[in-house]
Amino acid sequence: MEIENYIQKVTLNAREASLNLAVVNSELKNSILNTMADRILSGSVHLKKANSEDLEAGRKAGLSSAMLDRLELTDDRIKEMAESVHDIANLKDPVGSVIDGWTLTNGLRLKRVRVPLGVVCIIYESRPNVTADAAALCIKSGNAVILRGGKEAFNSNMAIYQRLQAAFKNTELSPHCLQLIETTDRSAVPPLLTADDCVDVIIPRGGKSLIRHVVETATIPVIKHYDGICHTFVDQECEMNMALEICENAKCQRPGTCNAMETLLVHEKVANDFLPRIQKKLQARGVELRGCTKTRAILSDIKEAEEEDWKTEYLDMILSIRIVKGINEAIDHINTYGSGHSDAIVTDELASAERFQNAVDSATVYVNASTRFTDGGQFGLGAEIGISTNKLHARGPMALEELTTYKWLINGEGQTRQ
Amino acid sequence: MEIENYIQKVTLNAREASLNLAVVNSELKNSILNTMADRILSGSVHLKKANSEDLEAGRKAGLSSAMLDRLELTDDRIKEMAESVHDIANLKDPVGSVIDGWTLTNGLRLKRVRVPLGVVCIIYESRPNVTADAAALCIKSGNAVILRGGKEAFNSNMAIYQRLQAAFKNTELSPHCLQLIETTDRSAVPPLLTADDCVDVIIPRGGKSLIRHVVETATIPVIKHYDGICHTFVDQECEMNMALEICENAKCQRPGTCNAMETLLVHEKVANDFLPRIQKKLQARGVELRGCTKTRAILSDIKEAEEEDWKTEYLDMILSIRIVKGINEAIDHINTYGSGHSDAIVTDELASAERFQNAVDSATVYVNASTRFTDGGQFGLGAEIGISTNKLHARGPMALEELTTYKWLINGEGQTRQ
Repeated sequence: MEIENYIQKVTLNAREASLNLAVVNSELKNSILNTMADRILSGSVHLKKANSEDLEAGRKAGLSSAMLDRLELTDDRIKEMAESVHDIANLKDPVGSVIDGWTLTNGLRLKRVRVPLGVVCIIYESRPNVTADAAALCIKSGNAVILRGGKEAFNSNMAIYQRLQAAFKNTELSPHCLQLIETTDRSAVPPLLTADDCVDVIIPRGGKSLIRHVVETATIPVIKHYDGICHTFVDQECEMNMALEICENAKCQRPGTCNAMETLLVHEKVANDFLPRIQKKLQARGVELRGCTKTRAILSDIKEAEEEDWKTEYLDMILSIRIVKGINEAIDHINTYGSGHSDAIVTDELASAERFQNAVDSATVYVNASTRFTDGGQFGLGAEIGISTNKLHARGPMALEELTTYKWLINGEGQTRQ
Repeated sequence: MEIENYIQKVTLNAREASLNLAVVNSELKNSILNTMADRILSGSVHLKKANSEDLEAGRKAGLSSAMLDRLELTDDRIKEMAESVHDIANLKDPVGSVIDGWTLTNGLRLKRVRVPLGVVCIIYESRPNVTADAAALCIKSGNAVILRGGKEAFNSNMAIYQRLQAAFKNTELSPHCLQLIETTDRSAVPPLLTADDCVDVIIPRGGKSLIRHVVETATIPVIKHYDGICHTFVDQECEMNMALEICENAKCQRPGTCNAMETLLVHEKVANDFLPRIQKKLQARGVELRGCTKTRAILSDIKEAEEEDWKTEYLDMILSIRIVKGINEAIDHINTYGSGHSDAIVTDELASAERFQNAVDSATVYVNASTRFTDGGQFGLGAEIGISTNKLHARGPMALEELTTYKWLINGEGQTRQ
């Protein structure tokens, strides 16, 4: 009950703070962000001390070395975190831009204007730098933000939060524009996910079980990122060397990311030629290949791909390969097993390119490029708060604009409805 | 278990049908809609027969005469239903329009193109004409649709559905583009609301308890319409006659609608002059007034407004009235008690108009006009599927465009990420 009261207070405070934050100009928001960045840098000793407590607790709890590495704050990482906040301050503010507008026959003037969503709640398990990044993106777009970080990074997150928080001092904005849940108690989460009256959107960032829990519990709208099961389809007519390079890049450049290729689809007419060459290239990079029966008739030394492989996001140096009869089978495979994230075709044929982009039901569909480009920064959107596999509101990379909604402003001179 | 299997089959069929529907041209969709409209008209006898069964059952079950009236299909209503489908066929198809696009420094060409959401599920309690309207809007925007109507209108809905369904015969599209849940069993709803893999959005249309149930049960994104607690604020400097007309219209023109005024806020400087005049006007129309203490010092013969009144959507000839010290108190009242639907200011002062439109956190904010205009048709959007009080994806009137999402199409010539 005590926790519920605490969460209720936090969410009410956020809602109240959001109303003022929504109407201040960019200059004030930018100045707060720049102060935040400076305070991260100048707090480096303090941040590392708090972080060392997390690291020690993590070692005792037996966290993997990969997890400990993700958790660690070094001087370089602290500097990067501050720079990222400065960069966000320099982005264009989406608030106030007019989306469209027109005049009705009765003389009413309508326009749709971008406004902040209101209160954004971010639940994350990731590196402590998310604390600063998410806070900066939300404040920049005029949203009050409630952060709920992972248990392992609690001290680091608290320390970063305190540095950021102080940036609201001596401004006209309430410090409740930015709040971090100051407990690791799991019972804090359900009341957050159902605070419909105060919170406008929940963005979970982390593993599938976290996201599933949020989706099942929340009554507030959720923008989520599930799997990235990305495909590359090598078509009958294509430049073989381009196909080899795109596939190598999509699989190997950073295999642990959501936009890396997990399944390679190859047109049966080029399989005999293409498969031995891509095998050579990928095996030299240490990729384990798993193939369908037809693939294994060509690459006899690789493992069989099971039904489960087509549904798996490996996030690892593993690739499943399937030979398809043509573009329709490739499209069907992607729409059946894919996760609607990023898929690519390598082709020379205009009709194939257009058919593929039209029919593949994914957030991002590439022709003759690596799926690894799906990223707010790469797209030129500036920093991203995540990549959405939702279809509602935001699809693909979510940046500042996706942290806004719109309102209809209508001006008349006494019009009434007949 | 049998019901769960049935719903699973329906949702899988819808998902599969949606992939073809998403890529057909407007001509085919329009021709199907026009056939639907014709089949509604030519099925009039059949529809009235099915409807009479519902009416008889409704009378036996003791439905109110208002509810029976809503349920009834007359020749005129059948004609209107058909005309509405023809009108939707004539609207501009949002699918395929390019939202924006640019070229990156590495030469990749990006564009965002409107595409259908996929599968839309509409759960409604309303008049049987929603069956035709919702089906037409979804098909026009390229979405497969699953309809779940109310028990009371089951026979009417089934009859309309069968007329519509036949429009897919001899086309390249699957009849599964349009499915109605062919049972009134309540256990059909939970598996619909959690069919994440197949359904992209749930739109509930009906009373608050239906909407609450959907929001609490669904794991699929929901676009909802809760209350319309709409306000008009009569500012210090304003044209009194304009204020009187706007208030009368907002309250009386159709009090049972979501965009009717429920609370009148009056600047204390004009209260002595304005309140007796609006009282005279509204009482002549039969409106019951409920006032705050200050209001009752001027209008001594009206009832006291309780705290609960400010939170109530009367949908009736009742109006609560509050005197405020000025615009800030008016804005605070609206942001505290309002439902974020439609609110208006009547003012001559530019600064008041701009402050009000900036600070009121509602989907539609009017200056010198009646809140009754909030409607897709009035806004020039064509037919609407509903009015959203969500902030995500769609805010305010939802028409064809809001039944679409976008995908990123990216073209290159071998770009890989470094």
